[in-house]
Amino acid sequence: MHIKLALLGFGNVHRALARLLLRKTDVLRDEYNLTISVTGIATHSRGFAIDPAGLDLVRALELVEAGQKLDALHQGEPVRDTLALIAACPADLVMEATWLDPRSGQPAIDYVRAALQAGRHVVTANKGPVAYAYRDLLALAKAQDRGFFFESTVMDGAPVLGIGREALLATDVKRIRGILNSTTNYVLTCLERGIDFEDAIIQAQEIGVAEADPATDLEGWDSAVKITVLANVIMGADLRPSDVDRTGIMATSVQEAQAAVQAGERIKLVCEAVRDDATGMVRASVRPMRLPFADPLSQVQQTSSAVTFETDTLHHLTLVEGDTDPTTTAYGMLVDMINILRGRYRYESF
Amino acid sequence: MHIKLALLGFGNVHRALARLLLRKTDVLRDEYNLTISVTGIATHSRGFAIDPAGLDLVRALELVEAGQKLDALHQGEPVRDTLALIAACPADLVMEATWLDPRSGQPAIDYVRAALQAGRHVVTANKGPVAYAYRDLLALAKAQDRGFFFESTVMDGAPVLGIGREALLATDVKRIRGILNSTTNYVLTCLERGIDFEDAIIQAQEIGVAEADPATDLEGWDSAVKITVLANVIMGADLRPSDVDRTGIMATSVQEAQAAVQAGERIKLVCEAVRDDATGMVRASVRPMRLPFADPLSQVQQTSSAVTFETDTLHHLTLVEGDTDPTTTAYGMLVDMINILRGRYRYESF
Repeated sequence: MHIKLALLGFGNVHRALARLLLRKTDVLRDEYNLTISVTGIATHSRGFAIDPAGLDLVRALELVEAGQKLDALHQGEPVRDTLALIAACPADLVMEATWLDPRSGQPAIDYVRAALQAGRHVVTANKGPVAYAYRDLLALAKAQDRGFFFESTVMDGAPVLGIGREALLATDVKRIRGILNSTTNYVLTCLERGIDFEDAIIQAQEIGVAEADPATDLEGWDSAVKITVLANVIMGADLRPSDVDRTGIMATSVQEAQAAVQAGERIKLVCEAVRDDATGMVRASVRPMRLPFADPLSQVQQTSSAVTFETDTLHHLTLVEGDTDPTTTAYGMLVDMINILRGRYRYESF
Repeated sequence: MHIKLALLGFGNVHRALARLLLRKTDVLRDEYNLTISVTGIATHSRGFAIDPAGLDLVRALELVEAGQKLDALHQGEPVRDTLALIAACPADLVMEATWLDPRSGQPAIDYVRAALQAGRHVVTANKGPVAYAYRDLLALAKAQDRGFFFESTVMDGAPVLGIGREALLATDVKRIRGILNSTTNYVLTCLERGIDFEDAIIQAQEIGVAEADPATDLEGWDSAVKITVLANVIMGADLRPSDVDRTGIMATSVQEAQAAVQAGERIKLVCEAVRDDATGMVRASVRPMRLPFADPLSQVQQTSSAVTFETDTLHHLTLVEGDTDPTTTAYGMLVDMINILRGRYRYESF
């Protein structure tokens, strides 16, 4: 099987994906009988390139990393924007990892919708389309008989959503709890060690975990978007990030963090989605909580992340991911691609 | 879709499965369009029953739990043993959870082979067939175009093997480490708390974790069988349990366990499979090791279990399962059943 990919965005994640595709060429061919060409790349500031015969990925990486535009690789009529590239690029599957507005999920929602409408499978690393438009996009994907997968939106390449799809079957998911944001977890780990808030943020920025403006993370917004994804996809809820009862870590101090440790507990920014037994409704929250050492989530240090599922049949199932980097995220997209190609998105019933 | 099941064995696990099938009747029908009947049950000491129209599971549970035989439910010619039941019972899928000899994997291997040869899908909760005959049984299953799944053999219902099948794709699994035996982990937790070895074993027996003869667990044999399963299935090795370099916890003391904790470490019975970079060969071991608190495996307490995968794309991925019971194991078999029915065993290539 030969597959043509269009890449929307060519930042850290998609450049790591390009390198992964190059590195995994042999194993994909030998073990999966799969050959892949990238027929289009759309970027924010480095132009657009389409080549129906397959772009030279090594050259594309060189150009962008040298600060140049991709236009030299382009074949055919000029392309004016990302939506035009989606329409013009001959692709079986669109990989979406563009910049987006975390408060609206746009323009990624429009890109995903356009790609599905054009009959492409879609893999996205962006939480936005899932947190703000999951039901609509899933309905569209089903109507088109195409896959819409997004493993890398939560916990990078860790198979959180894969577990939901493949292992939490015919079970009542009562609660999902997670530590899903690296910046806040790194800062909380620093506070325990006596490093004050401002210095902790500077450290987090120096190692590339925190953004230049870390407010989205520190106020719990990123966590709220992620728990929305899990609640909607795995628990069948229909929440938006603004529905999440959210408290960030801005008010947490070294003293509080160290007092918790003295008491055999750790302060963690816990994301939680809980189904109310009486009404069946799912409520979600993000807030700093003291967790006893015996709780696996309390042991998630620095930039690691974790999620615990509580169901009527699996009482406590926890997934922990450590040492992530852009390759981890890109790998989640590669796994989504393989799973879509082998039909894992057709899973409703018999 | 209507599915007929034959149950081999009717101990704790299959009785929990019978209750789960009763409890999940509505969700299986409504969400998966799946109805199920159990057409045969083979037991060690409670007889055999076949009914092509479907056995009354409530009645079967009552009979066995009252110490009576199942023969009252049987329709047709008498059945003399389990192999005869496999041959005579009209079933789409055979669920295997019989008693077996941990040093040979028999007679479960013969049961699985007979069921596959008869054209049945097979789900087993027994490690033996996988640890001693995986390649042969998988080849037979492929030749018959039938599924052979065994999620519940390692970490009960936790999706360890599901992650291998669905999420560790086109990746180089370098190392698998796990804490996979409840009895030894419970005893080690007791030692840390100052409870001596003999008392810890008595406690473990009282809560139903340890066997009357706990030697298989304490000498690391159960752990060796489990790491063999993971090495063979997920890393493509071809080991037998006797190939595992194995040390049990018989020589571990309260003093050692507490000294480790004082040093910020915990003694754990660690199962490990490692691929040698130079030769590509996989070596496996089971031995008590001191793990620092920062290692997620060090935090696995009492009867919980955990496994960490290290791959070239997912650097540290850990799965932790807590609070298991026979329902957890039965649930792993139910998930295997659904995944076989939706074709998840046809996953080799495109």
